[in-house]
Parts: sequence; structure tokens; C-alpha cells
Amino acid sequence: MKKMIDYSVYLVLDPELCGGLDGMLRVTEAAMAGGAGVVQLRAPQWKKRQWLDAARALQPLCRQGGAVFVVNDQVDVALAVGADGVHVGQQDLPVAVVRELMGPQALIGLSVNHAGQLAAVPSEADYLGLGPVFATSTKKDAAPVLGLAQLAGLAAATSLPTVGIGGIAPANAGAVFAAGVDGVAVVSAICTAADPAAVTRELYALKGHTA
Amino acid sequence: MKKMIDYSVYLVLDPELCGGLDGMLRVTEAAMAGGAGVVQLRAPQWKKRQWLDAARALQPLCRQGGAVFVVNDQVDVALAVGADGVHVGQQDLPVAVVRELMGPQALIGLSVNHAGQLAAVPSEADYLGLGPVFATSTKKDAAPVLGLAQLAGLAAATSLPTVGIGGIAPANAGAVFAAGVDGVAVVSAICTAADPAAVTRELYALKGHTA
Repeated sequence: MKKMIDYSVYLVLDPELCGGLDGMLRVTEAAMAGGAGVVQLRAPQWKKRQWLDAARALQPLCRQGGAVFVVNDQVDVALAVGADGVHVGQQDLPVAVVRELMGPQALIGLSVNHAGQLAAVPSEADYLGLGPVFATSTKKDAAPVLGLAQLAGLAAATSLPTVGIGGIAPANAGAVFAAGVDGVAVVSAICTAADPAAVTRELYALKGHTA
Repeated sequence: MKKMIDYSVYLVLDPELCGGLDGMLRVTEAAMAGGAGVVQLRAPQWKKRQWLDAARALQPLCRQGGAVFVVNDQVDVALAVGADGVHVGQQDLPVAVVRELMGPQALIGLSVNHAGQLAAVPSEADYLGLGPVFATSTKKDAAPVLGLAQLAGLAAATSLPTVGIGGIAPANAGAVFAAGVDGVAVVSAICTAADPAAVTRELYALKGHTA
């Protein structure tokens, strides 16, 4: 399955920006219709019962829509719902531990914020989130902004698939793809869009796909 | 193993009150020397890497000292270190889900704050934490205070082992035991004690053990 993943538009669901679970389901359906190939649930402000309820609804929805469903940080929630994968940051559980818990088939992503972290990426990681590319308001403990030049340097220095994340929207996504990443991870530009399917389609086309 | 558990003094480790990981290890050793039979790691302010590092150190220490080691809320961390058990609250993963993830041998505890929750305790729970018995400053999202009369009512209404929690110290622990619980779960009275072993021994004796 992993080889078939289309990282071009990687939706990161924020419950506040989406307006709760119903909004997340609506945004997910629309984004998949627009071409999103990966959907991540990220809700650091939530207790686990909320994570579980949301993940239980999102996993089958994503499977039906052909997208990979990834849980941020909470490996127990991912295990409980049989999620396709987990995305972790540098302060979360180590990738090797996540791999052991999730098994060989799971998709495991790791956030990388600078070259030092890139040099230390464990072999168990399947893809990398590189960022923040631009300034972002949706992640409160974000690392310093990379900018496009550093993003290009990181993307060139790894053989793993990469997605840029942080402040990416249709207006700047073309430049992000030009930096050499395989996809753009997008939070607010899709979650808060009046037409999330249209925005996703626009982002998808910017990679050079015929949308 | 579950039948041999001595709930009399149940230490809940708070990293801030203990002074970080080194302090938690020191307090744990002392409390076990004083008779603590269960040790729980609870660090809601921590990222998972910190949880993992602490749990990796605490699990073997507890095993060596004859105490059961329980992780609060983070089932993935418990799985990663092979912890003896998990304690969950009402907004955490459901007990049935925790049981499925942790397996039949794990000790699983559930916090219960009122009679309605007691009536809904899943069959997969091994013991209950009843509280808050008194006002507490160590849990920011605590439920309304039970008091001793309500505590006694809850303890009498279940066949599961129970521990009281919330504001318990040597000065009031005798009354808590008199309410019918099997143990007292203690945070600050042990974590901040000049002599955690002595305080634990004092609490242990208040149950009626010959200390």
C-alpha cells in the first residue's frame, strides 16, 4: 500500500478550524474529492475519548474515499481504530517505538525541522514532514521557519518522500512544490475554506497534475 | 499477579512536585521502602518522549521494589515499556479499549467521580480510583469534591478494589480508610515530603497494618 500513496495534498485536520467532528468529516470528504491522498487527525487540545471518537469515524471514511488515515502522536488511538499510520514529532514517541507498536504495514511519518534532525532520521520512517515552511498560527510550539531555500536543501538531502508543512496555501504552494517536495501538508487553507474541495483541487493542480 | 496487589498506599508521581525524573525515581524508591504497592506515572503536561523516558526508568525500578507500575492515560507508553497497567479517567480511552490493547494480564484502573459513573463501570476494570475525596491542587480538571460520606457510599456499592484520591495526607487518611476503601492514592503528601518513606509508612499504618 505504501508505494501507492499520493502525498500531493496532505490534509491535516484541526478540530477548531474545522468546527468539531462534523466539520472534520465534511472537510475530509471534500478534500478527498479534490484529490487529498493523506488525512491526518491532529488535536493536541483533546482528551483521548474525543480522539477515539473522531478516529473511529475518520478511518472508514478515508478508506472509502481512498485516502490514507494517519493519527498524530497518539499511537494508542491509532491502534484502537486500526489507523493506516501515525505521524510523530521530535518530542513524541521515537519512530522505532512507533514501528514496533504499529507493525510493518503502518505508514509512519516524522516531522523534521532542520538538517541535524534529518541526519538522525531512523530507518523505520516512511516519509518526512518538513517545516514550518512559512509562519503558521495553527501549531503553537512550532520550530523556526525554514523558508523555501532550506526546504529545498532538506528535500534534496533525503530519499524519503517529503511533504512541506506550515503556512501553505494556493498562493504559495507552487513555490513549495518547486522546492522539491512530494506534497503539501495543509491545515487552515483547507479546513477554513468555503469550498475545501476546490482549494484541494487547486493545490493538487499546482504540483503539475492535470487536475 | 492482580490478586496479590497491595493497594494500601498508591503513589501517584507528579513530575513537578517530585522535581523531575530524578526526583520521581528517588520518591518511588522511598515510597516502596515505606510500603507503597502501586506507583502511577501521571504527567499531563509532558510530551510522550518524556513519558517514555520516565516509564522506561520506573518500570524496572518498581519491579525490583515489588510495586506495580501503572501509566496514566498513555496506553502507547505503557505498551512501549511493558508497564504492569494503565489508569484511565472518564475522558480517556474506554476501559474496554484499554483492555484490548493491554491484554488480559494488565492492571486497569478507572477514575470514578460519582454514582452514575460507578453504575457504568465496564467489566474489564480491575480497580477504581474514587475521588476527589478532598479538595486538591494537583489535578487541574478535577471533578467536584466527594467528601467522606459519598466516598463510603461509592466504596460500599462496588465489589472492585478501591482507592480514594484527592487531598489525602496522614492527617486525614485514617478517616479515608474508615470510609471503606482498600487504599489511599497520594500525590503531594508523598512527592513533596522531606522523608517520603516515613510518610508512606505512616499512611500504611493508618490502614491498620502493623507498620
